[in-house]
Amino acid sequence: MRIDIVNGPNLNLLGIRQTDIYGKTCFLQIRRLLKSKFCNTKAIINIYQSNSESKLISFIQNSNADYFIINMAGYSYCSVSILDSLLYKHIPYIEVHISNIYKREKFRSKSIFTRYSMGLILGLGYYVYYLSVYYILISNNLI
Amino acid sequence: MRIDIVNGPNLNLLGIRQTDIYGKTCFLQIRRLLKSKFCNTKAIINIYQSNSESKLISFIQNSNADYFIINMAGYSYCSVSILDSLLYKHIPYIEVHISNIYKREKFRSKSIFTRYSMGLILGLGYYVYYLSVYYILISNNLI
Amino acid sequence: MRIDIVNGPNLNLLGIRQTDIYGKTCFLQIRRLLKSKFCNTKAIINIYQSNSESKLISFIQNSNADYFIINMAGYSYCSVSILDSLLYKHIPYIEVHISNIYKREKFRSKSIFTRYSMGLILGLGYYVYYLSVYYILISNNLI
Amino acid sequence: MRIDIVNGPNLNLLGIRQTDIYGKTCFLQIRRLLKSKFCNTKAIINIYQSNSESKLISFIQNSNADYFIINMAGYSYCSVSILDSLLYKHIPYIEVHISNIYKREKFRSKSIFTRYSMGLILGLGYYVYYLSVYYILISNNLI
Amino acid sequence: MRIDIVNGPNLNLLGIRQTDIYGKTCFLQIRRLLKSKFCNTKAIINIYQSNSESKLISFIQNSNADYFIINMAGYSYCSVSILDSLLYKHIPYIEVHISNIYKREKFRSKSIFTRYSMGLILGLGYYVYYLSVYYILISNNLI
Amino acid sequence: MRIDIVNGPNLNLLGIRQTDIYGKTCFLQIRRLLKSKFCNTKAIINIYQSNSESKLISFIQNSNADYFIINMAGYSYCSVSILDSLLYKHIPYIEVHISNIYKREKFRSKSIFTRYSMGLILGLGYYVYYLSVYYILISNNLI
Amino acid sequence: MRIDIVNGPNLNLLGIRQTDIYGKTCFLQIRRLLKSKFCNTKAIINIYQSNSESKLISFIQNSNADYFIINMAGYSYCSVSILDSLLYKHIPYIEVHISNIYKREKFRSKSIFTRYSMGLILGLGYYVYYLSVYYILISNNLI
Amino acid sequence: MRIDIVNGPNLNLLGIRQTDIYGKTCFLQIRRLLKSKFCNTKAIINIYQSNSESKLISFIQNSNADYFIINMAGYSYCSVSILDSLLYKHIPYIEVHISNIYKREKFRSKSIFTRYSMGLILGLGYYVYYLSVYYILISNNLI
Amino acid sequence: MRIDIVNGPNLNLLGIRQTDIYGKTCFLQIRRLLKSKFCNTKAIINIYQSNSESKLISFIQNSNADYFIINMAGYSYCSVSILDSLLYKHIPYIEVHISNIYKREKFRSKSIFTRYSMGLILGLGYYVYYLSVYYILISNNLI
Amino acid sequence: MRIDIVNGPNLNLLGIRQTDIYGKTCFLQIRRLLKSKFCNTKAIINIYQSNSESKLISFIQNSNADYFIINMAGYSYCSVSILDSLLYKHIPYIEVHISNIYKREKFRSKSIFTRYSMGLILGLGYYVYYLSVYYILISNNLI
Amino acid sequence: MRIDIVNGPNLNLLGIRQTDIYGKTCFLQIRRLLKSKFCNTKAIINIYQSNSESKLISFIQNSNADYFIINMAGYSYCSVSILDSLLYKHIPYIEVHISNIYKREKFRSKSIFTRYSMGLILGLGYYVYYLSVYYILISNNLI
Amino acid sequence: MRIDIVNGPNLNLLGIRQTDIYGKTCFLQIRRLLKSKFCNTKAIINIYQSNSESKLISFIQNSNADYFIINMAGYSYCSVSILDSLLYKHIPYIEVHISNIYKREKFRSKSIFTRYSMGLILGLGYYVYYLSVYYILISNNLI
Repeated sequence: MRIDIVNGPNLNLLGIRQTDIYGKTCFLQIRRLLKSKFCNTKAIINIYQSNSESKLISFIQNSNADYFIINMAGYSYCSVSILDSLLYKHIPYIEVHISNIYKREKFRSKSIFTRYSMGLILGLGYYVYYLSVYYILISNNLI
Repeated sequence: MRIDIVNGPNLNLLGIRQTDIYGKTCFLQIRRLLKSKFCNTKAIINIYQSNSESKLISFIQNSNADYFIINMAGYSYCSVSILDSLLYKHIPYIEVHISNIYKREKFRSKSIFTRYSMGLILGLGYYVYYLSVYYILISNNLI
Repeated sequence: MRIDIVNGPNLNLLGIRQTDIYGKTCFLQIRRLLKSKFCNTKAIINIYQSNSESKLISFIQNSNADYFIINMAGYSYCSVSILDSLLYKHIPYIEVHISNIYKREKFRSKSIFTRYSMGLILGLGYYVYYLSVYYILISNNLI
Repeated sequence: MRIDIVNGPNLNLLGIRQTDIYGKTCFLQIRRLLKSKFCNTKAIINIYQSNSESKLISFIQNSNADYFIINMAGYSYCSVSILDSLLYKHIPYIEVHISNIYKREKFRSKSIFTRYSMGLILGLGYYVYYLSVYYILISNNLI
Repeated sequence: MRIDIVNGPNLNLLGIRQTDIYGKTCFLQIRRLLKSKFCNTKAIINIYQSNSESKLISFIQNSNADYFIINMAGYSYCSVSILDSLLYKHIPYIEVHISNIYKREKFRSKSIFTRYSMGLILGLGYYVYYLSVYYILISNNLI
Repeated sequence: MRIDIVNGPNLNLLGIRQTDIYGKTCFLQIRRLLKSKFCNTKAIINIYQSNSESKLISFIQNSNADYFIINMAGYSYCSVSILDSLLYKHIPYIEVHISNIYKREKFRSKSIFTRYSMGLILGLGYYVYYLSVYYILISNNLI
Repeated sequence: MRIDIVNGPNLNLLGIRQTDIYGKTCFLQIRRLLKSKFCNTKAIINIYQSNSESKLISFIQNSNADYFIINMAGYSYCSVSILDSLLYKHIPYIEVHISNIYKREKFRSKSIFTRYSMGLILGLGYYVYYLSVYYILISNNLI
Repeated sequence: MRIDIVNGPNLNLLGIRQTDIYGKTCFLQIRRLLKSKFCNTKAIINIYQSNSESKLISFIQNSNADYFIINMAGYSYCSVSILDSLLYKHIPYIEVHISNIYKREKFRSKSIFTRYSMGLILGLGYYVYYLSVYYILISNNLI
Repeated sequence: MRIDIVNGPNLNLLGIRQTDIYGKTCFLQIRRLLKSKFCNTKAIINIYQSNSESKLISFIQNSNADYFIINMAGYSYCSVSILDSLLYKHIPYIEVHISNIYKREKFRSKSIFTRYSMGLILGLGYYVYYLSVYYILISNNLI
Repeated sequence: MRIDIVNGPNLNLLGIRQTDIYGKTCFLQIRRLLKSKFCNTKAIINIYQSNSESKLISFIQNSNADYFIINMAGYSYCSVSILDSLLYKHIPYIEVHISNIYKREKFRSKSIFTRYSMGLILGLGYYVYYLSVYYILISNNLI
Repeated sequence: MRIDIVNGPNLNLLGIRQTDIYGKTCFLQIRRLLKSKFCNTKAIINIYQSNSESKLISFIQNSNADYFIINMAGYSYCSVSILDSLLYKHIPYIEVHISNIYKREKFRSKSIFTRYSMGLILGLGYYVYYLSVYYILISNNLI
Repeated sequence: MRIDIVNGPNLNLLGIRQTDIYGKTCFLQIRRLLKSKFCNTKAIINIYQSNSESKLISFIQNSNADYFIINMAGYSYCSVSILDSLLYKHIPYIEVHISNIYKREKFRSKSIFTRYSMGLILGLGYYVYYLSVYYILISNNLI
């Protein structure tokens, strides 16, 4: 089993940027956490991040994951192109957001990805990644 | 630590009703799962369900929980009264929905509870309860 | 065959309240009329009324009717909870309104129940009950 | 007493067209049904159908009916002209639709005729004609 | 100079129908009034009325008038087809309405013809015809 | 009989300003025209203009006219205060606009005065004043 | 003369809950205040509170008050059922809110009760009850 | 303590104009009432009225009141300029309306002043002034 | 194979009317073009035009074409009746417009026919007919 | 060259009022600044301010400036009358706002003047006046 | 003559991806088809595809085509940047879509490119490319 | 002090493209102008342009400017991703547009960047860059 965690623009700054909203944990730490917790399972977990819409599309088109966990950040609200690449793959995905986007500016509360997702986890900090992986593994009886 | 899981109307039929949407797991099984997984922690986890808006309000007003996990079902879209009782308590809560409400009728996609919640987990079947409890415990260093 | 006629809030005042809009016939008289007209059929016809949303939900959840005839009055416009209990039952229902709700305040003209109903009869006074029962019986070849 | 049942465009195909939606009963059969059921009453019942907006207007202008039963089909959503001819006549009318128009495309759910009608019966197949006539006769003590 | 006064559906009933709104003057009287007042001018004034959208289109297509005065009644709100026939002719027209359509139902207050007209006269009873003709004649120095 | 023609802001520039839209005729000429045409009638016709909302209100409050003809120009779209002063007087008024406001910017096409007026004449240049006066006189049998 | 002050959900917590918004005065104190101020009048003043929509409906249906003062709290925005029970009674009522609901979330600023009320008093803390009673008494010449 | 009651356009006609809506009491009588009732307090109460937006702005800019009671009438719906002058002063104000503006035309139900006010009293006739003053005095322990 | 090209109101003026928008080619020329180009195929191509909604409905109801090419002109935006006759026939159709309707008035850009069509070709002058026929023939391997 | 800087209501309080939003610089200081900076140019720069809509209209009508710089404050959102006076003059103008109106209440972000202006400068404190003058002079090669 | 066919994101998967919607024909086959059909003409036809918005902009900026045929896929609904590059070039273009985007999700039915295009061809599978080229050639008398 | 001027898509064509709208001055000339005017100050001024959203994000993330001046062109209306990178930096920025975007298509008049900017300068051609730099320098007392 392979899980690809795909992250959109500005998430390269996770842990550095606006830490009052996004927390102080960076992807390196998240990667370590996931590894330490799930190393016994046979799941391969990749974390990918790009600021480039076209690179995100290419990554998704070429991925051979069984599940995606996506955090499309600023592209959540308008990128039909990324959505189309996900719909093409027919791979189930969970949408996550680190902050509660419904508490923030109104334009942040209408992700076009939610409707086609398996589920949505938001507002729980970097745990949204952890919980998504956990769900995929447990619902597949891998833990 | 005490966690109250508060469920709204028709969820007494969980596991029986529209199993294609909501799955075949009932609260009894969820209770057992939570107990078996989290029995080592000192957390007390209650599951409450009512079809009555006023009983839900009373339960929330009188609860001495540290966290709520709420699934307000049909009341998610209009019950300012239940929302007010939550705002009164100033107790943090996670909103959960068993199905992906964004895939369904349009009137199901605007919960008035989300904006004031810590976070939202939806679409992942009965695991939404499990993951919420898990998050509360782990973020409080209880597991 | 069993038909449950389920009535929402303030309909306990039918025949007494705002008689210029709702007419002077009360449920007692409607019950008698239905009995006298349809006593030869094997249909059992119950009339239930409650001002309480939760009692209406319970009644619907526990009913073993073959058909519902519903007049949800003030709950027609917002009670997703009652709608959910009907959807759960998968029992066909006819929606009725005694007055022509489209002639009245604008907020009265968008019942959320219509879309899922078999049909809608409105504006014809207490005959809306009579005609609904009549339709169910004739379309089932019971009269 | 005279009742004119006025039908709009494409209803000449009733019983032939889209029978999954509209059923297999044509106007000939409806006419026979009405005749057989209500032959003892003194009511004269006419069924008129036209695809032409102007002919429908002329029919209504020239009718000497005591009641109209109207099924304006595609004209239900925009023909202020037919509505005006009905308002001119000051003859009470019942609006009927064979299918439940609220289950279908959104543009079918806003008939401009409802607000001025005595009542509305929809979704109950060809019985909507039968029930309308029945109501008119019974509320006038003719049966 | 030729002026064609083109009238839409139900205006054949002018002077008979809803006289509280439209007044008691019929086209015969209007014709006489116009004749008596403007007989000295060289203007030819025709009054045409039809309930049929297609006949109104044909009349406009084939007219050799210098000006139209139009009262499209129920077609004012939706008939792009009649509007197109007017736009084709490139003949200036004045829009008139006998009643003040802004005082009535909301759907009566958005005529699609106004934007392309020379001007609009409404609410002044049958004088709207008289004043329109008067304007055309005086602005062409014919009276 | 007394008729007050009340004109709003910038109309002091009529005949000078944007003559492609408003024409080259000024109020002096309009006054002369009205005098010459209607001198035989017993009607007293005043033309008032002000750029000041409060002066327009005062004029209307203190007027002892039998009819108003109003051209509120820029105040047509928002001055509830002037409208209130007209409603107070209970004196019938005709609304006029020199240009066809429906051909221009969208914000010019929703006068709040129309709904309460006797009628509306627009788009016919300075003749809108002439025709309004003409209507008042003829409908009162003064010419 | 009898005045019933009817309070909706969560107002049982008045004086305890969110005191920065609602103040520190509870109903006991309000009752005492009203008694001390208006004891000389013959008015009987009852204060009723319930979290239950159906109990509020029953209270209103069965009340024999001459006036209601209502604070429907969370039900102000959607309960057509309670509104219907008030409309049935034909008893004049004043709507009050302790806080200025227009300063708060947008969904709190559209009470469906206002349109049918005698008047509205809001934002002035627990004095809104006092002022309402005062108005009823003074306008009936009881003080 | 000084209270300025500031009244907008057409309120100079209070007691004279549309007495079915606004009542028969004029400002002179209101002034007398306030004086007789509150003469023992040290409060100075001024009543100001103007039809002129700029004079209202100037009055507010130059006032040295401790509280405003405002009835902006027709300016309630659009005068950002008057609102700005109030915001500048940082003096708390109560908004009042003599009639229930929610019962009237829709454009009258959105005052831009409410959101920034201490409170709102409407629909209770000339008592709205009385009750506002009363509240200010009592909440400042002056009566 | 039979293809019926069905044209709505005012298209009888194609080649004559507003030639800056619609071009100078009339149906006669289009017919000749189609004949000359496609005479070798076994396809029968009819061109029908009517200004009458009811005649268009009748034509469609009675047609035995395998494909329709429709240009509904002014009826594109509102005629549910013609749409219903097409839906009844279950014959695939291509929608065409001679001009680019998205460049023109806003009300021209929402054809209700597009959603149910095989495809849409617009803006390419009289070639829209040619290309539609070409597509039908080539996709059926007839050329 | 003459430049008129026209300021709307409450700007007489610039430098005094809400200094957290508008800064502490008053017009006297701005005038001095402009004089000192641009005294070598031949430009005449006037600063005008009025709280009165009609005086602003008169000022604009009578001005013989080559350019306007306008800050319409509270009139920016609704005064079609002032806009009309500017359109009449056909003198190019720059719109300025001292604060960033897009950061503030929503009703402040739709100035009707922007669309017709040469340009817009906002949010940069009293420098918005300075930069506007600077632009006019430099683009006319006067500095 | 040179024609550039410019394709947006995910169209690299044409013929592979979601073949139920987009068909099984890939660009290689389309290229061959166009070559075989139009090899006699002097037209040079290029097919370009990119998932990258910026590369599409660069391609358009640098192209020396006489016509574009564009299929912007996911960028059709929001990329003002690509639209701007097209507007810059002043080269006429035809918009195409392989599927009928009006049959699909609502957000797919508002392309911002249509309004500025010569024409639109959609829903006819890979033939939309063929027909567009055909039109350009025939309307330029190259075939 | 360092100022980065960041320019979005198609601005590489400034001075070449649509010169009627954007003028004939290119960035080279703007750079020279800024250098010549501000060479005495210690400010370092960079001009950056890219058609690529991701490169713009990277540039902003990595910039060590004290101020940004941004002209996001086509990305002004939808790129939450670029906005997020600006919000992350917490560096104040001025938004500029060369043309008056409010005069053009409606979709160009809602920049999501304005609300978070220090200020906005638009419509004044290439001077918008000059004036922004000028403001930053003068308000920091560097000139």
